[in-house]
Amino acid sequence: MAITRKVKPKELFMGKLSYGGDLLEEITDVCRKENIRLGRVEALGAVQRARLGFYNQQTHEYQFFVVDQPLEITKLVGNVSLKDGNPFVHAHITVADKMGNAYGGHLAPGTVVFACEFILEAFDGPILERHLDEATGLSLWTMSE
Amino acid sequence: MAITRKVKPKELFMGKLSYGGDLLEEITDVCRKENIRLGRVEALGAVQRARLGFYNQQTHEYQFFVVDQPLEITKLVGNVSLKDGNPFVHAHITVADKMGNAYGGHLAPGTVVFACEFILEAFDGPILERHLDEATGLSLWTMSE
Amino acid sequence: MAITRKVKPKELFMGKLSYGGDLLEEITDVCRKENIRLGRVEALGAVQRARLGFYNQQTHEYQFFVVDQPLEITKLVGNVSLKDGNPFVHAHITVADKMGNAYGGHLAPGTVVFACEFILEAFDGPILERHLDEATGLSLWTMSE
Repeated sequence: MAITRKVKPKELFMGKLSYGGDLLEEITDVCRKENIRLGRVEALGAVQRARLGFYNQQTHEYQFFVVDQPLEITKLVGNVSLKDGNPFVHAHITVADKMGNAYGGHLAPGTVVFACEFILEAFDGPILERHLDEATGLSLWTMSE
Repeated sequence: MAITRKVKPKELFMGKLSYGGDLLEEITDVCRKENIRLGRVEALGAVQRARLGFYNQQTHEYQFFVVDQPLEITKLVGNVSLKDGNPFVHAHITVADKMGNAYGGHLAPGTVVFACEFILEAFDGPILERHLDEATGLSLWTMSE
Repeated sequence: MAITRKVKPKELFMGKLSYGGDLLEEITDVCRKENIRLGRVEALGAVQRARLGFYNQQTHEYQFFVVDQPLEITKLVGNVSLKDGNPFVHAHITVADKMGNAYGGHLAPGTVVFACEFILEAFDGPILERHLDEATGLSLWTMSE
């Protein structure tokens, strides 16, 4: 059964990231600077390399890997909530190489921007904070029905 | 030529789905519970297995297949409208395996949640109801210009 | 460092594209018709063929290729801004074939709609206009901090 919270649109931003920047870090920096504690983000563009995570559902550990080539970002999607009291961006990304082959995973630090345009929405609403979830080993929102 | 309807933002929800739940069914349940008859949904997370559909444009039949392994959801995107008078979620999904290889298709029942965070928007607007479209064999919105 | 502009939601549209239409052209036509100069778009559906671009980050040229088969659109995402004074849609797309294999890239003219449902948002905000960016060779938003 899904657990749901009502939120409200608050602010909306469009922007671009800097050439050579770290994709995840730059988006997180915008959230910190604009004090966004709840929201969502989407982006498209290209990266010089991608570092992605796959969560091993058996061992409960992320396995990280690098796709070390220029790639189109066909989609970045993420949400913003709190972890340890700070804005935390949880984003997944799909990228494609020069043959069009698509790769994807959990966006990890180490993904280097070539060019990236993003839309970031801030929401008003309840505090959603991440804590360890025993069933999955992931850091999930603590919510009760 | 595109056919377009103006709608208005009404309500906005963030939430998480339950471990082991059916991805499509849980999102549809939220729409029923919150009486969402028009809207859109997006999600990211991971699934234990995915069941996807590919629409055969010649025979006008969906071909379903299972990617029977743990996968990251790199993107779920969908809209909400009516079919047979009830809220109906039409969603497509992109997933990625442990090597980062991406797969995708029409989200079918049988996709099992590992962890999933979603954002669901309800819109006010005209009734969009799905009926058989002769040209494609699909169940599309009946709209005239 | 990211460069950011605040925008405001203005109008929201849902709609469908026509069988056999050019995907990028039809979305651009809606923007022209509704006078959308700033915004975002998302879509799902299926195409008869896709024409995609990959930006060569060394030579600063797009390489275009065709995936010449029926495909599901697992996600189209794009933004709307101005280029040469006219509404310009910059979209990336992820598609999947009958085996579920995903491909993606920059959406180019020549992608033929089978069926496509879209959501298009218009924003109020500063003028974002594309001009040549020396560092990347791309047509990016001219923004200063």
